[in-house]
Amino acid sequence: MTETLTKPDLETVAEVAAQLRVDSVRASTSAGSGHPTSSMSAADLLAVLISRHLRYDWDNPDDPRNDHLVFSKGHASPLVYSVFRAAGVVSEDELLNGYRRFGERLEGHPTPVLPWVDVATGSLGQGLPDGVGIALAGKYLDKIPYRVWVLCGDSEFAEGSIWEALDKASHYKLSNLVAIVDVNRLGQRGETDLGWDTVAYARRAEAFGARVIRIDGHNLTAIDEALTEAEDDSDERPTVIIAKTIKGKGFSEVEDSPDWHGKPFPEDMAERAIKELGGERDVRVRGPVPEGGGSDGASDGGARGQAGKVELPQYEVGEKVATRKAYGQALAALGAANPAVVALDAEVSNSTYANQFAKEIPDRFFEMYIAEQQLVAAATGIGVRGYIPFASTFAAFLTRAHDFVRMGAVSRTDLRLVGSHAGIEIGADGPSQMALEDLAMMRSVHGSTVLYPSDATSTAALVERMAETSGISYLRTTRGAYPVLYGADEDFAVGGSKTLREGDDVTLVGAGVTLHACLEAAEQLEKDGIHARVIDCYSIKPIDEATLRSAADATGGKFVVVEDHHPEGGLGSAVAESLLSGGRRSLDLEHLAVRGMPGSGTGPELMAWAKIDAAAIAEAARRLAGRG
Amino acid sequence: MTETLTKPDLETVAEVAAQLRVDSVRASTSAGSGHPTSSMSAADLLAVLISRHLRYDWDNPDDPRNDHLVFSKGHASPLVYSVFRAAGVVSEDELLNGYRRFGERLEGHPTPVLPWVDVATGSLGQGLPDGVGIALAGKYLDKIPYRVWVLCGDSEFAEGSIWEALDKASHYKLSNLVAIVDVNRLGQRGETDLGWDTVAYARRAEAFGARVIRIDGHNLTAIDEALTEAEDDSDERPTVIIAKTIKGKGFSEVEDSPDWHGKPFPEDMAERAIKELGGERDVRVRGPVPEGGGSDGASDGGARGQAGKVELPQYEVGEKVATRKAYGQALAALGAANPAVVALDAEVSNSTYANQFAKEIPDRFFEMYIAEQQLVAAATGIGVRGYIPFASTFAAFLTRAHDFVRMGAVSRTDLRLVGSHAGIEIGADGPSQMALEDLAMMRSVHGSTVLYPSDATSTAALVERMAETSGISYLRTTRGAYPVLYGADEDFAVGGSKTLREGDDVTLVGAGVTLHACLEAAEQLEKDGIHARVIDCYSIKPIDEATLRSAADATGGKFVVVEDHHPEGGLGSAVAESLLSGGRRSLDLEHLAVRGMPGSGTGPELMAWAKIDAAAIAEAARRLAGRG
Repeated sequence: MTETLTKPDLETVAEVAAQLRVDSVRASTSAGSGHPTSSMSAADLLAVLISRHLRYDWDNPDDPRNDHLVFSKGHASPLVYSVFRAAGVVSEDELLNGYRRFGERLEGHPTPVLPWVDVATGSLGQGLPDGVGIALAGKYLDKIPYRVWVLCGDSEFAEGSIWEALDKASHYKLSNLVAIVDVNRLGQRGETDLGWDTVAYARRAEAFGARVIRIDGHNLTAIDEALTEAEDDSDERPTVIIAKTIKGKGFSEVEDSPDWHGKPFPEDMAERAIKELGGERDVRVRGPVPEGGGSDGASDGGARGQAGKVELPQYEVGEKVATRKAYGQALAALGAANPAVVALDAEVSNSTYANQFAKEIPDRFFEMYIAEQQLVAAATGIGVRGYIPFASTFAAFLTRAHDFVRMGAVSRTDLRLVGSHAGIEIGADGPSQMALEDLAMMRSVHGSTVLYPSDATSTAALVERMAETSGISYLRTTRGAYPVLYGADEDFAVGGSKTLREGDDVTLVGAGVTLHACLEAAEQLEKDGIHARVIDCYSIKPIDEATLRSAADATGGKFVVVEDHHPEGGLGSAVAESLLSGGRRSLDLEHLAVRGMPGSGTGPELMAWAKIDAAAIAEAARRLAGRG
Repeated sequence: MTETLTKPDLETVAEVAAQLRVDSVRASTSAGSGHPTSSMSAADLLAVLISRHLRYDWDNPDDPRNDHLVFSKGHASPLVYSVFRAAGVVSEDELLNGYRRFGERLEGHPTPVLPWVDVATGSLGQGLPDGVGIALAGKYLDKIPYRVWVLCGDSEFAEGSIWEALDKASHYKLSNLVAIVDVNRLGQRGETDLGWDTVAYARRAEAFGARVIRIDGHNLTAIDEALTEAEDDSDERPTVIIAKTIKGKGFSEVEDSPDWHGKPFPEDMAERAIKELGGERDVRVRGPVPEGGGSDGASDGGARGQAGKVELPQYEVGEKVATRKAYGQALAALGAANPAVVALDAEVSNSTYANQFAKEIPDRFFEMYIAEQQLVAAATGIGVRGYIPFASTFAAFLTRAHDFVRMGAVSRTDLRLVGSHAGIEIGADGPSQMALEDLAMMRSVHGSTVLYPSDATSTAALVERMAETSGISYLRTTRGAYPVLYGADEDFAVGGSKTLREGDDVTLVGAGVTLHACLEAAEQLEKDGIHARVIDCYSIKPIDEATLRSAADATGGKFVVVEDHHPEGGLGSAVAESLLSGGRRSLDLEHLAVRGMPGSGTGPELMAWAKIDAAAIAEAARRLAGRG
């Protein structure tokens, strides 16, 4: 058994660095895939960090006092897994036989299937924004002095999300956040935008409010001094360490070569690389543990406590209330009862009604300004620490954060997203503000939950359900005020629906604003002697298959499905796919959706134009009824 | 008839500014909706610009020598429409009775239904990136000395896309681009991130390589001098004018008030505002026209010329070729034949194979580095000038640009997007790199075309089709090499499909990599005496409804649809929705898709795990056949 070194001197750290390089080469060559050269450029940075600065109890990754290490350049996964081997939590056998293999946990890019990984990375420009979220939690919620260390690549500094992150990091004075930028000059297909112009990187990061330290990323003393300086958090700024490095450092055949991005070395090259690096080693190293020593007495000393009973807002049936307003009221009620609930918004909280929460619980509200990517990333990072974040903005603008939502699913994060101003119902503002793709986007996310309530009561109930829902959950709210349909004692399960009207001639399926149109259409149809069944399909994913199938049986497979969304991927798709799963079915389905490009107008004008209003629904139902 | 002033002095410009304010108030009050205060802060800037600097022939908006005016702060639409009235191209009647009304062209946020609007705005942080694209076209393709003037809001400087834009603008030395930032301090719900800290804005813009001019945005002389300085393009940098302004300027009741964002004034307030602004006016003003005078002799003097016959690459049936490679080869062939074709990539051109184009036609290739939002925005801007841009990156990372694609549709732009490395087929890299949501995203875009070819021949043919396709078109390519299925003389229409195998027991529908699995499954099934029909559904939107319906008739409604994508919104949805449109149908459908969260592995391992391989397809088909 190898002795584990604790906070070794820099001479020993050099050995650690060499081992990280050798292991990065071995892992990627054994897998026949991976990024050894991008790992080698950052090996010295990581060796100093994990040996002497990262305060982390490797045996207790859940210790709330632990620092956090985020690999924003996730393609350097050979390096992070070599770090785990050096810390003694991943074996040599796993490193050499598990990396990038089917069914194994050392995936091509790190994910939280590993207990030492907080967030999945691999889509560049996301690790730093996620780190901002973790640092926000540390400073404002946990109030624990852990640090968040983020290893960034230089290529990813071309992503705007990096600048959203630094802007918020300085706005919120996140001195507990340290970004280490591995400026190895070379991206996937040649030189990066800024190459080795570390002055340009420094100027940008400084302009965005960071304390910047420029170093030679292969000088261990300089690295150690920079990390020590970064630990001094007295000046209330995030730190950005700009480290000039050499891609493939340590193996002269590939150093600074543009031809070796993302390529493992063939066996013979790997042998030469390992030889040049001084051969294989078996160093075990750990840095300091969180203050107080060990994990004994560790407690989740943050703001979280026991959740009490939620006193949801109540509404009179028939009263007109916008679902976005009910969201804000329910969120504030939830926050009052549960100290883990956190709200974030993108400078539209007076429209989404998240301002209700901000007013009542300002300490757990974070204004992310108009930066939807950072909005979702901050929620992801805050979720790492066990909080229950809700992030809201206009539904249309959540498309801005699509890649972050997708990666949130890979991160196994529990994200609660709320999009207001859905569909053409919003009227005068026009198509740029109309979410007509959001249901498709959110449904396609792995393991997601998609909710679209039609009234204030169901909205409030579903907000409470979201707090208990794992994975990515999405609530779509409506701008206008519509009558409350349900009493306060009604139950709304995720995956449920409500049959508001029985009828055997045709089934009308709506959600949100179109449910009200369905109810109105059913009244009209009744006068023609057509008995319509009306289903409130407030849970679009999962969808209430049993109720839909019963309706198909009862109404001879005749359905009108109507949605304030483009025809693809939304409610209509969900209903069609549900009805077609599980065996043969005979269906006659009319799908009403927004098929043209809307302009401005009033909500009713636009719904009539798109043929998703009561008149259009009734007409479609009559066609179906006439088809016998 | 009012006299039209041309390049008036600043005293007259003050009258223009007052009229723009008055008209902004009148338009929004008449509509009962809109943003008068955000218009008033920028009125002086626009008055000087349109009177003395914008070189624009209002009677010939298509003159290629015209400057371009982009309202990145699209919510200030009352101001842009008031500008159009001042220029005499929109009438007072239209301004007062058309703004934000149903069926009218003065929409809540400007769109190109108006001939003087290049791109739709309203999702903040997009106008400047689009402007970068127009400026790229001007400098590198048209080689015409027009300028691109972009009015930005201050709130939108929180969007990372702004920094992607400035980074590219300085990288490409776009001295023909001028951003005018209206720093009125107030966002929708209070003070912005940086408030009136114009020094901070200046520092950031300078760090990103811009020439920065800070001014009082209500001092006409200072504005005029700044715009004059901006016109000096000798120093090869974009210009950013940071103008400190007052929201609601000119109406003391609302000046610098946080309570008047996005609210029209009630009638009585509007009356007081107009009075304070000196009453209604009827000034007509135009600035200089492009050099050479008038529009006579205007020619599209850019690089474009006649398109010749495309010599597409040809492939041997049975040869293994990756569709991503065929894309690159076809794109290069297309570019060789058609001087309007332009290619852009996000630093992965050696993976997408856009590097083939870059190598052969470097003058029409733009490297956008890892900035997918700017990638799509640049293509949008280049499209404004009539070019045929193709933008490619990994399909997974196109999610980063979802909002830009959505707005591209509102802009009526013809965008050609190509996403490589689709699905779990990519194997070892893991889920962060696997596009499993892209078909849902692209299908839900208004008017989009979604293509997913399975072999090199069809890929090449469809790349040629995309050049002729209007709206947003999307091509999904595969990482691995698979056998060529079609000879060079085969025709591939958008909206078509290929029936590769006839059979009456069950229909197998695949696209891309799963088509090969379907063909293999059909072989296996044949041995069991099950005759499978196999459809290559390479055109997912529009989809070949006629062929699918015939197949339903021929195979008793029995379908296996299989896709390398999440179950929602992709090929399965497209087939289901298509089969359920247009009347009653009895269907028995098995939908195979990626339902779990993948890790790493080989492509075949992962396809087996997800049950989208030949074995799983054959098994599903047997179940269907057994169901009689």
